[in-house]
Amino acid sequence: MTDQKAVSVLGLGDMGAALAEALLAAGHRVTVWNRTAAKADPLVAKGAARADTAADAVLASRLVIVCLLDYDSVSQVLAPHTDVLAGRTLVNLTNGTPGQAREMATWAADHGADYLDGGIMAVPPMIATPAAFVLYSGPSGTFDAARPVLDAFGESNYLGDDPGSAALQDLALLSGMYGMISGALHAFALVRSAGASAREFAPLLNRWLQTMSGWPVGAAEQIDSGDYGKDVVSNLGMQEAAYVNHFTAADEAGISAELLAPLHALMQRRVAGGHAHEDLTGVIELLKK
Amino acid sequence: MTDQKAVSVLGLGDMGAALAEALLAAGHRVTVWNRTAAKADPLVAKGAARADTAADAVLASRLVIVCLLDYDSVSQVLAPHTDVLAGRTLVNLTNGTPGQAREMATWAADHGADYLDGGIMAVPPMIATPAAFVLYSGPSGTFDAARPVLDAFGESNYLGDDPGSAALQDLALLSGMYGMISGALHAFALVRSAGASAREFAPLLNRWLQTMSGWPVGAAEQIDSGDYGKDVVSNLGMQEAAYVNHFTAADEAGISAELLAPLHALMQRRVAGGHAHEDLTGVIELLKK
Repeated sequence: MTDQKAVSVLGLGDMGAALAEALLAAGHRVTVWNRTAAKADPLVAKGAARADTAADAVLASRLVIVCLLDYDSVSQVLAPHTDVLAGRTLVNLTNGTPGQAREMATWAADHGADYLDGGIMAVPPMIATPAAFVLYSGPSGTFDAARPVLDAFGESNYLGDDPGSAALQDLALLSGMYGMISGALHAFALVRSAGASAREFAPLLNRWLQTMSGWPVGAAEQIDSGDYGKDVVSNLGMQEAAYVNHFTAADEAGISAELLAPLHALMQRRVAGGHAHEDLTGVIELLKK
Repeated sequence: MTDQKAVSVLGLGDMGAALAEALLAAGHRVTVWNRTAAKADPLVAKGAARADTAADAVLASRLVIVCLLDYDSVSQVLAPHTDVLAGRTLVNLTNGTPGQAREMATWAADHGADYLDGGIMAVPPMIATPAAFVLYSGPSGTFDAARPVLDAFGESNYLGDDPGSAALQDLALLSGMYGMISGALHAFALVRSAGASAREFAPLLNRWLQTMSGWPVGAAEQIDSGDYGKDVVSNLGMQEAAYVNHFTAADEAGISAELLAPLHALMQRRVAGGHAHEDLTGVIELLKK
């Protein structure tokens, strides 16, 4: 016996292929399956075994990594093969919602499989590099058993029992990223409107966003306490007043400020609610329905 | 003669006071003025000279730093004293728009003053720390002469002749920050809806945003070239399809996804325009009016 483990990977899109490659590089016995079989060729050339059917892939290993387009694809691929799931561990790294993850966990349990849900915080080229991290949720025993294999993808972050947690925090992190991208797109549009080069401006923006990436750490304190009035450096009223400059400048520049509009609407509502002297962070209270 | 310079600071809000303090710490002869005179007391205790009027403050130094609430305040404070401006350098670090900066530059020139406009990329406690940087624009000779003094505030970044550039890039950087904050607020609202602590989630979000702060560097290349179809890692069509998960998850969580809506609208329009196979960055084309 060696510590080589048998692992199957279902789904060989860019991400699935990167995961299978990381497992091969870590020395595991890897079986791969993809609806379009040719996608497996480069991995087979590197030592992976090709399964002709999804059922064969599931049968080849007790640990089965699933990385498909969406949860509907997962259901379509696995539903015909519920008879082979018992005793296996499914690690579903497909993008989805917390609700879908919880549903899938129940479905897997109904068929005798252990289930972990995961969210990959990386693009495929980052897999198996120090920059990659992956969120997991589900039973801790299942995670502990699978972890030595899963660590091949990047840093493993276990978020607890609720199978929906990984999808939830994955979406939360992505929303942080999309917000940052929204702001950066507006920034570039503004700078380009004045004839400046995006490339020359990018390092400044990069540096500034890096500095500001610490913002959540201070904000979290306020959010957990619900107290937005302590140690306020630049209050909401001042920020709301200055925020209007963004719309004036966008008008002057002939660009749309639509990406900046919803935060301003929240700021205005919060000021109108009597919170001008508090921190901007308090607008989060208005997101609760 | 020492290399001590006479510098005046008009406006002693949190930011103006931090600037004056940095100048004192750098060993300059500092004269301060504020509409509410008591704000000068702590600075006078540290060695600053108090000017009784704005005109006296301008007369005390050839280099005059202005840091007031907005450009209207700058006009109100300086307009009665145009007779004392000739031969002096005004460095206006007040928040405003590029249009206001250009107008103020012309006004200063009309009264014989040299003019630099600036944007401070820091909150007051960051002034004179390595994290602070300040954008300047205006005549390069004026900047070069003032720079040895200005460097006391933080790293000085000169952006060229157009007096509007500093305000433009200041607003661009701030819009990047506000976008990031918007995304982070949504992220926290989602995580808190599941009963998780913002404090526990914050380090993960911090780390993720830090990783993603490099996004502008790659995007800038595409934006300058106008070619969004090269080396696409995760195309717009896939991202738009997965983005819908944010709205489903927000619905499940009982929170408003309004902060994420405008980027999605742009993604949908861009997909409808036939750009699904390209990079997300191409949505910037839709911001041009």
